[in-house]
Amino acid sequence: SGGNGFSCKAWIWDVWEFCKEDSNRVLFSFKVGLAVLLVSLLILFEAPYVVFGTNIIWSILTVAIMFEYTVGATFNRGFNRALGSLLAGILAIIVAQFAIRAGRIAEPFIIGASIFLIGTLTSFIKQWPSFVPYEYGFRVVLFTFCLIIVSGYRVGNPIKTSMDRLYSIAIGGFVAVFVNVLVFPMWAGEQLHQELVKGFNAVADSLEECVKKYLEDEESEHPEFTKNVMDDFPDEPAYKKCRTTLNSAAKLESLAGAAKWEPPHGRFRHFFYPWSEYVKVGAVLRYCAYEVMALHGVLHSEIQAPYNLRSTFGSEIREAANQAAKLVKSLGEDIRVMKRSQKNPLIKKVHSSTEKLQRAIDTHSYLLTSISETPDTFSRPSLPSKLSLSLSSTPYDFSSQLANLDSNNQEKDSNPTTQNIPLGTLPLPRTESYHETMRKHSRRLHSWPSREVDAFEEEGSSNTDLLPRMAALESTAALSLATFTSLLIEFVARVDHLVEVVDKLSKMAKFKHEVS
Amino acid sequence: SGGNGFSCKAWIWDVWEFCKEDSNRVLFSFKVGLAVLLVSLLILFEAPYVVFGTNIIWSILTVAIMFEYTVGATFNRGFNRALGSLLAGILAIIVAQFAIRAGRIAEPFIIGASIFLIGTLTSFIKQWPSFVPYEYGFRVVLFTFCLIIVSGYRVGNPIKTSMDRLYSIAIGGFVAVFVNVLVFPMWAGEQLHQELVKGFNAVADSLEECVKKYLEDEESEHPEFTKNVMDDFPDEPAYKKCRTTLNSAAKLESLAGAAKWEPPHGRFRHFFYPWSEYVKVGAVLRYCAYEVMALHGVLHSEIQAPYNLRSTFGSEIREAANQAAKLVKSLGEDIRVMKRSQKNPLIKKVHSSTEKLQRAIDTHSYLLTSISETPDTFSRPSLPSKLSLSLSSTPYDFSSQLANLDSNNQEKDSNPTTQNIPLGTLPLPRTESYHETMRKHSRRLHSWPSREVDAFEEEGSSNTDLLPRMAALESTAALSLATFTSLLIEFVARVDHLVEVVDKLSKMAKFKHEVS
Repeated sequence: SGGNGFSCKAWIWDVWEFCKEDSNRVLFSFKVGLAVLLVSLLILFEAPYVVFGTNIIWSILTVAIMFEYTVGATFNRGFNRALGSLLAGILAIIVAQFAIRAGRIAEPFIIGASIFLIGTLTSFIKQWPSFVPYEYGFRVVLFTFCLIIVSGYRVGNPIKTSMDRLYSIAIGGFVAVFVNVLVFPMWAGEQLHQELVKGFNAVADSLEECVKKYLEDEESEHPEFTKNVMDDFPDEPAYKKCRTTLNSAAKLESLAGAAKWEPPHGRFRHFFYPWSEYVKVGAVLRYCAYEVMALHGVLHSEIQAPYNLRSTFGSEIREAANQAAKLVKSLGEDIRVMKRSQKNPLIKKVHSSTEKLQRAIDTHSYLLTSISETPDTFSRPSLPSKLSLSLSSTPYDFSSQLANLDSNNQEKDSNPTTQNIPLGTLPLPRTESYHETMRKHSRRLHSWPSREVDAFEEEGSSNTDLLPRMAALESTAALSLATFTSLLIEFVARVDHLVEVVDKLSKMAKFKHEVS
Repeated sequence: SGGNGFSCKAWIWDVWEFCKEDSNRVLFSFKVGLAVLLVSLLILFEAPYVVFGTNIIWSILTVAIMFEYTVGATFNRGFNRALGSLLAGILAIIVAQFAIRAGRIAEPFIIGASIFLIGTLTSFIKQWPSFVPYEYGFRVVLFTFCLIIVSGYRVGNPIKTSMDRLYSIAIGGFVAVFVNVLVFPMWAGEQLHQELVKGFNAVADSLEECVKKYLEDEESEHPEFTKNVMDDFPDEPAYKKCRTTLNSAAKLESLAGAAKWEPPHGRFRHFFYPWSEYVKVGAVLRYCAYEVMALHGVLHSEIQAPYNLRSTFGSEIREAANQAAKLVKSLGEDIRVMKRSQKNPLIKKVHSSTEKLQRAIDTHSYLLTSISETPDTFSRPSLPSKLSLSLSSTPYDFSSQLANLDSNNQEKDSNPTTQNIPLGTLPLPRTESYHETMRKHSRRLHSWPSREVDAFEEEGSSNTDLLPRMAALESTAALSLATFTSLLIEFVARVDHLVEVVDKLSKMAKFKHEVS
């Protein structure tokens, strides 16, 4: 029983961690307990029971069904329940009066037909797109109507039945709202606010992480890439958070929907607080996150620019990414503390570092396309005729240039004499070895999805169970660096848009101007 | 009232369209009506009412609450309700017996304490991640427990009360399941199947649409790009569908969760059908959709490769994209008709066309980086020292080459004499005009987010309310073509992975082998 004792201990530890992670969970539980206790007292004590009778049990049902985590959601449910019950009560009274007048024989038929009709109608209407959020209200209409009209038929006096029921539902609703608002209220608005800020940090962290890994030497540890858990990168915690941000649309929307029901509270002190703007900012933030996902795709794709080349542009890429991440974080921080600060200096820094990156790429762009070895194994592809001129000389020049760059890289400017030798006359000192290294690098890379570099050579095998795999042309590998930087630049462009919507939000929500 | 009459007509038309779009909506409505009617008959008729008494109203409540759209979801709800009620009944009987033995004075205290405890516990447990799907069950436990123990306290005989209630809940549950399964059943499995197939088509269509637009002449109509509805491209219907696919994760998961509750049915004839594999295939498909989103981002970004250059690689890009889209569609079709067909020829076609694209890019890669005009307005950026050699000559060579390409483009090989002129000796005939055109093109492009090309020049303006905007270096524009193709190639790589998971699904789900 030692093992058992241990697992019990572990279990208690888990529960403790779970509570500590968000103490509101425990608070919420106690609030529900308190609410049902309060409403039960109405029956347990003699006095209220005499007044309300057995119908009071409906208030218990109401509390149990209405009590939600946030104030806004509880209000929303309460509204659904109240309006639904009211509508159902009115309908039931009308139909019941009509049925009673129709005579003893026709009455059950009319009641049955009305039940069928209400069941069909409510179920149909609740599927209409604009009514989908009120799905629960239509359920309430249906069962309240059935309960009132049926028990009215058996007990008689449908008006008294429906009134009693509405009373007890109102009491239950009142208790639920009372406890929810007055005892440690949890506001959907506050949660929405925090959720959005969390998203900003997730995107910024993920960008920094992605760029850092991209510029890392490949010698460092890469985790074994297992195919089935393709979206699980244990050493990239920020990426996981960024992915959560991508799927946060529904959560933000439901929180905003609940927050609209809440009165001004805490830091959100004016009426008609622009909660829907939060959703819009979240959407633009998600568009930035898409770019981070694409960057992450390049990071884990097989076709990879060699480390030398990546590190050549390393400082520019790192600078642009860090500045952009800093801006995103600062936007998130502004929202968190609800202030408007002057962003222009930061934005200008982001732009200038991005432009520096663009210019670096621009000036050295020949490096990105120059690793082509004339492929002997492939036949030269049929070229678009309009391009067929002026092709012959290029591969040679470029690979020689790169070879030179490579050797230079290792010899650290020890060869200043080559500085001014015009293009095309350079010797080809270490081309082969360079390509060898690159090929080795490429092989070692773990890719998404994993593909064999040699697959093309094995095409002869006729095993039909094995799916053919795409051969990656290593010669275009350097272009992946261009892709990475383009995506990074596009990210910055989207951040510009993010700055705008945050600015709009801060105006509409009347964030304080910072005195600077 | 003519206008009113018209709007009423329009409204009826809307409803009619809504019904025609998915006739199951109407069916579902009638099924709900039928179910509540059936259960009401138990009260409307004399005989069953005598047997069951007023407690039978609980069966109406059960039907109204339990009845869900699909069979699986109804089963799931029914399971929650049945187990919850049973657990609550047992708990209530135990506590009630204990309370009665404790004496008349202690009884209400024990009952009150137990209600508080159950309320707190159920609310706490239902927040535990692995219990979240059973949230409704915990609500059922709570209110059933309260109802039984409270009415047991007032009416006496808690065992009879709980038994009666369980009976009527069971009857309601039976009616709900009976109607749901036997009258035009809607299977969650079938819907999951169709939803997944729809996703395949959406991704393939969106890819084709995106590439088609990318290769279109810019002279063709581009819709005005309004900032606030940034994700609304009215002329791109497939893009919208693809975006829906991105957000389909929750839907697929809930359908798979419901489908697991369903017995073998229709085309899904064996037990333990691998519904969870559908979710996995959906996840890989979503990864492909991310690439399409990134491609779409390039399509709508400001920095654009000139049309000439795009059309140069047009046929290769189009071919690769169309082949990939064809493969994705064929995978979707295979799933739709539940067969396993030989995919290798198609896959090989995709690979060879992608390799052709890679090789075309590879061979002509100098085109991608050659549009740099020596920027006079900017100071040359500080170059990484190891790169500073061999830079001087490149801009000249490249722009001359491209100028030549451009003129050649228009003169359609009318100048065969330039064919063998070595690099660097070409004249510079139309460089300036080419750049002019390109600049004009760039201006006309609508971008996401819209940025002014001239913003950089206006930097002097000190209006702090206007946010600064990034200057786009046009000279790196051609690299955006490299980005586009890289993303396209990455898409193909991900499709390889998609082929694998579809293959796995078809094995696990025992799809028929096609006789070919």
